[in-house]
Amino acid sequence: MKVGVLTGGGDCPGLNAVIRAVVRKGTQEYGYGFIGFKDGWRGVIQGRAVPLDIPAVRGILPRGGTVLGASRTNPFTTENGVRGIRENLAKYEVDALVAIGGEDTLGVAARLHAEHGIPCVGVPKTIDNDLSATDYTFGFDTAVGIATEAIDRLHTTAESHMRVLVVEVMGRHAGWIALHSGLAGGANVILIPEQRFDIDQVCAWVASRFEASYAPIVVVAEGAMPTDGDLVLKDATTDSFGHVRLSGVGEWLAREISARTGNEARTTVLGHVQRGGTPSAFDRWLATRFGLHAIDAVRDGAFGTMVALRGTDIVRVPITEATAKLKTVDPALYAEAGVFFG
Amino acid sequence: MKVGVLTGGGDCPGLNAVIRAVVRKGTQEYGYGFIGFKDGWRGVIQGRAVPLDIPAVRGILPRGGTVLGASRTNPFTTENGVRGIRENLAKYEVDALVAIGGEDTLGVAARLHAEHGIPCVGVPKTIDNDLSATDYTFGFDTAVGIATEAIDRLHTTAESHMRVLVVEVMGRHAGWIALHSGLAGGANVILIPEQRFDIDQVCAWVASRFEASYAPIVVVAEGAMPTDGDLVLKDATTDSFGHVRLSGVGEWLAREISARTGNEARTTVLGHVQRGGTPSAFDRWLATRFGLHAIDAVRDGAFGTMVALRGTDIVRVPITEATAKLKTVDPALYAEAGVFFG
Amino acid sequence: MKVGVLTGGGDCPGLNAVIRAVVRKGTQEYGYGFIGFKDGWRGVIQGRAVPLDIPAVRGILPRGGTVLGASRTNPFTTENGVRGIRENLAKYEVDALVAIGGEDTLGVAARLHAEHGIPCVGVPKTIDNDLSATDYTFGFDTAVGIATEAIDRLHTTAESHMRVLVVEVMGRHAGWIALHSGLAGGANVILIPEQRFDIDQVCAWVASRFEASYAPIVVVAEGAMPTDGDLVLKDATTDSFGHVRLSGVGEWLAREISARTGNEARTTVLGHVQRGGTPSAFDRWLATRFGLHAIDAVRDGAFGTMVALRGTDIVRVPITEATAKLKTVDPALYAEAGVFFG
Amino acid sequence: MKVGVLTGGGDCPGLNAVIRAVVRKGTQEYGYGFIGFKDGWRGVIQGRAVPLDIPAVRGILPRGGTVLGASRTNPFTTENGVRGIRENLAKYEVDALVAIGGEDTLGVAARLHAEHGIPCVGVPKTIDNDLSATDYTFGFDTAVGIATEAIDRLHTTAESHMRVLVVEVMGRHAGWIALHSGLAGGANVILIPEQRFDIDQVCAWVASRFEASYAPIVVVAEGAMPTDGDLVLKDATTDSFGHVRLSGVGEWLAREISARTGNEARTTVLGHVQRGGTPSAFDRWLATRFGLHAIDAVRDGAFGTMVALRGTDIVRVPITEATAKLKTVDPALYAEAGVFFG
Repeated sequence: MKVGVLTGGGDCPGLNAVIRAVVRKGTQEYGYGFIGFKDGWRGVIQGRAVPLDIPAVRGILPRGGTVLGASRTNPFTTENGVRGIRENLAKYEVDALVAIGGEDTLGVAARLHAEHGIPCVGVPKTIDNDLSATDYTFGFDTAVGIATEAIDRLHTTAESHMRVLVVEVMGRHAGWIALHSGLAGGANVILIPEQRFDIDQVCAWVASRFEASYAPIVVVAEGAMPTDGDLVLKDATTDSFGHVRLSGVGEWLAREISARTGNEARTTVLGHVQRGGTPSAFDRWLATRFGLHAIDAVRDGAFGTMVALRGTDIVRVPITEATAKLKTVDPALYAEAGVFFG
Repeated sequence: MKVGVLTGGGDCPGLNAVIRAVVRKGTQEYGYGFIGFKDGWRGVIQGRAVPLDIPAVRGILPRGGTVLGASRTNPFTTENGVRGIRENLAKYEVDALVAIGGEDTLGVAARLHAEHGIPCVGVPKTIDNDLSATDYTFGFDTAVGIATEAIDRLHTTAESHMRVLVVEVMGRHAGWIALHSGLAGGANVILIPEQRFDIDQVCAWVASRFEASYAPIVVVAEGAMPTDGDLVLKDATTDSFGHVRLSGVGEWLAREISARTGNEARTTVLGHVQRGGTPSAFDRWLATRFGLHAIDAVRDGAFGTMVALRGTDIVRVPITEATAKLKTVDPALYAEAGVFFG
Repeated sequence: MKVGVLTGGGDCPGLNAVIRAVVRKGTQEYGYGFIGFKDGWRGVIQGRAVPLDIPAVRGILPRGGTVLGASRTNPFTTENGVRGIRENLAKYEVDALVAIGGEDTLGVAARLHAEHGIPCVGVPKTIDNDLSATDYTFGFDTAVGIATEAIDRLHTTAESHMRVLVVEVMGRHAGWIALHSGLAGGANVILIPEQRFDIDQVCAWVASRFEASYAPIVVVAEGAMPTDGDLVLKDATTDSFGHVRLSGVGEWLAREISARTGNEARTTVLGHVQRGGTPSAFDRWLATRFGLHAIDAVRDGAFGTMVALRGTDIVRVPITEATAKLKTVDPALYAEAGVFFG
Repeated sequence: MKVGVLTGGGDCPGLNAVIRAVVRKGTQEYGYGFIGFKDGWRGVIQGRAVPLDIPAVRGILPRGGTVLGASRTNPFTTENGVRGIRENLAKYEVDALVAIGGEDTLGVAARLHAEHGIPCVGVPKTIDNDLSATDYTFGFDTAVGIATEAIDRLHTTAESHMRVLVVEVMGRHAGWIALHSGLAGGANVILIPEQRFDIDQVCAWVASRFEASYAPIVVVAEGAMPTDGDLVLKDATTDSFGHVRLSGVGEWLAREISARTGNEARTTVLGHVQRGGTPSAFDRWLATRFGLHAIDAVRDGAFGTMVALRGTDIVRVPITEATAKLKTVDPALYAEAGVFFG
């Protein structure tokens, strides 16, 4: 049995931990051989591969990024994409694929399995934690930790100068990072994409915080939007999967708050630091367990499924279940956080 | 409605986050008054209390320890313990108690409720993560993070000198911290209290790691024991709840490994640094949610229950269910980690 | 003897450590009384003060920001500024002032001493490390540490996607943070305000790094400028001391690099996270020693001087010497770093 | 020109940064070739070497430990030690040696140069910061940072339980780590090897802290000793350079304090975590600059010298000057810290 491994989509701490666990258990317990495709689906299409064995995965557990590289290439919108995949799986004599990625990468794996009979097992990955069917995805805890540490630091600047500090965190369609880091960091306002915000309400919270002689921290997901009228968003871009990448809500908010309340306001856009570097202990544990169970799924021939976290257990679910709809923040959960606003 | 709050047992990052959430929501949404008892049950017995309101809990979210102090006093083994509690609850006109603590503190709360009709709601706390009925307790993630960072650092020393490094982590009766930090830190041997270890097997793993030209890290829970013959444990002590506190397995291991394999071996005992200081983002989030739901349980009159994490939900369970038996590491879960040994 | 303390200018980790050391030693060893003026010179002008004694400074050592607040108010450009200062020093019976701040705050202290005979001792503070007469200022090491950690994280993202990552760090007029964090983080290009950069050279370095199959990190100080033509700088603002605050060079660079080399490039602007939060051990040590020596200077009547670090010694220098000219990066020092470019 | 590089003595964060800078500048600017000897002087004696070029040193800057390995082998006490060195330098056609290490390693380099004409340049390295002739050595700042973070964490445990916490840090003969981390961490007692301590005085400080309703942190260097009678020290060992390695003063102190004051006291021995893992930004910067200047010294034929930090400059000093006597904590400097005791 020879297994191909690939990592797709954006950078995410924990990818290497998955690769290591898959290779380690597959080699040692099941005697499988491994090959790594470079840069996600692009490497499978183009036949760019590297050998993967136990020495190759030593020491990569704590490293961010992915030793295999990643891309956002979609074989279904690439000319001869699927054909290339078929040919290269045959050429490298690959019997099964472990695809580690988010909604897009896994969606491709599900279609390749369902429509073309290619034996794929999925490992869910998204910094944003917005995949259904799993309690958490690795990378999320690291991102929340980095954002929380930044919020901790910004509190003292806010207090020293009695300024509003707006922190823009990742989250185009789901507010998980904003909600968790906002709660953990003691933010006074948390704004998420799931619920349009009323700028007057935001300003009221800001004012109420100043009345208590404290300076407010506003945490805003990059995809959050005001109620009336869409933001004129600078630098909005569209990727090959058709996703719009928004940008600029943090700066917009600081300007508006400043103009409406008369308080000085500054923005920090955390950006890529949230997704790079060494994974948190939680993410290393989760990614490692995902890897161990993914290779078990290969052994069991459970193709078309992906591994998922439920409570403290790793389970298998159809990939399609996970990618059918985005996991967004429940209104009740968001309301729970509201007691800390203002 | 006036609510008393107390924190019992050992120090644990996240205690202040619970106190803050209980007081914030109880005051703001339900109009309750609050009082904080000092040093766990001891403060209730002795009638030592401090006022608790929103200003008193501002800024404590990121701080380790507990602003209320803690102790291991057991009212059921203290003369006039229960009578003191009754009298002081009456004196301070306390209508309900929120008891934040581990097996011992919660066990007292359950008995006070069941046997004496005292209205208690519990919030589970243990660094060791060994309470049943909840997926995780706060403080655990912080401890695992600290232990993992230490293991990361020790790897480079081990490699530079080709030495065995033994890391003793917390866990008297349950190996959760050892298992999680060992997996996250890439340990080559993980030893837990749930399963006696064979020192010959440990030495075999150590030797196998050296054969691959790497230096081994051995993570051992403080309560782990060898198979043949009990350790002569220095400094074993017994607390007022009858728990034996072991000590010294890390040093014993380093001596034995060194004597049997001829390799230099050193021990690091992480000790109290694992339980102090600022909580991780995960623990702040969990502790905050526990606090919000604990005050809801008070409002609903759900006395005798405690809050618990199930997946991503906070639920209520009878305290007795949580304290009936220790949550230990399942043999299958431990076996899963075995692929990385050696 | 009664001593007034104030902190001026921007937020900086270590301010509280200075305040604590000044008050602790002054009270305990010399029997002085203390008063804290709020928000820098503004609080002296307006007569807003808080009592300062040993209990008031307990626990503030590890906290970022300043318990006294800060502002950029310049008494020499404020109506009745100096008169207000005179009146309030008399009203509060203040015999000497310890002024903790940067070029601006210290410049005021020097003039108040020289022109108005007000007994001032200075403690130098600047995140940017651009004050003459001292080897380092506190806050700088913390900022460099935060920037370096961010660069570490960005490396993995750069490698995983073979992208250029531009990191904009603080430094309007001096490139110290860029130079130190760039060297410590293994940046492939470092751009500083002291030396205009040639965008073609930058692109050549970027290309050379890609040729070695690595992805480049470009660290740029916010005040760095290209050789030909000034940047059209968005959001440039001028403060009450006449300083221009630039902004946007990081985004400009990413756009230009991308357009000229065809490589994807992204920018991270670290912003305020560099100046908030707990100080590094080095900064706590330096700030504490500055505080201890500042109160000795008061005792010795060494007014008009400030404390400074020379090697491992704390010395006294005339404030005017420190503020006469900015300490910028020497061309030879910058050239030394050039071996790592490309 | 072909240059050999070796790292001797204990593990120290920053060793890899030196190696990288030496190789990078030597190759790129001077066209030198390089070879790395394994495990300090032992590798030179035994002729075990690895190739060193720019690709070999990529990515090692942030890594702790040393890619070359280290040992405490002393060629002058090893049979045929010096002859082995001569032979292997000839065999590998090495024209100059860069020896990175502490007092012992550098002492060997000085003798090899003076007595045998072997062209050596030294780079000073010691976690303990006890080398004369340089303001700081790399590794020290990292160790102080780790110790300070541990002290920060222990404060909350001490306060929550009103316990004495004793922290034993590195420092056999010099108290630099204890002094710096104790000051930075806000310790209430700091004990160093340079000055014997009076246990009654220590207990008085402990009592005074409890009187102020705070719990004391005692930071003690591993080599500190009480005034009357030597400690019965467990596990004292002697290495091949004749140094005694003490152990156990932390535990002794906790027992004595507890017995004499009646307060609960616990010890944390930080041990090897202080010397492993990624270097701080300061140490990476210092180690990098040391490396750049060491290869300049080779180019200039300045054999018998080592690089050293003076203020912010890197200078050259005779190795013998640095190793003639230990740099210990000056009594006046220690007295300065005394204001925070108790």
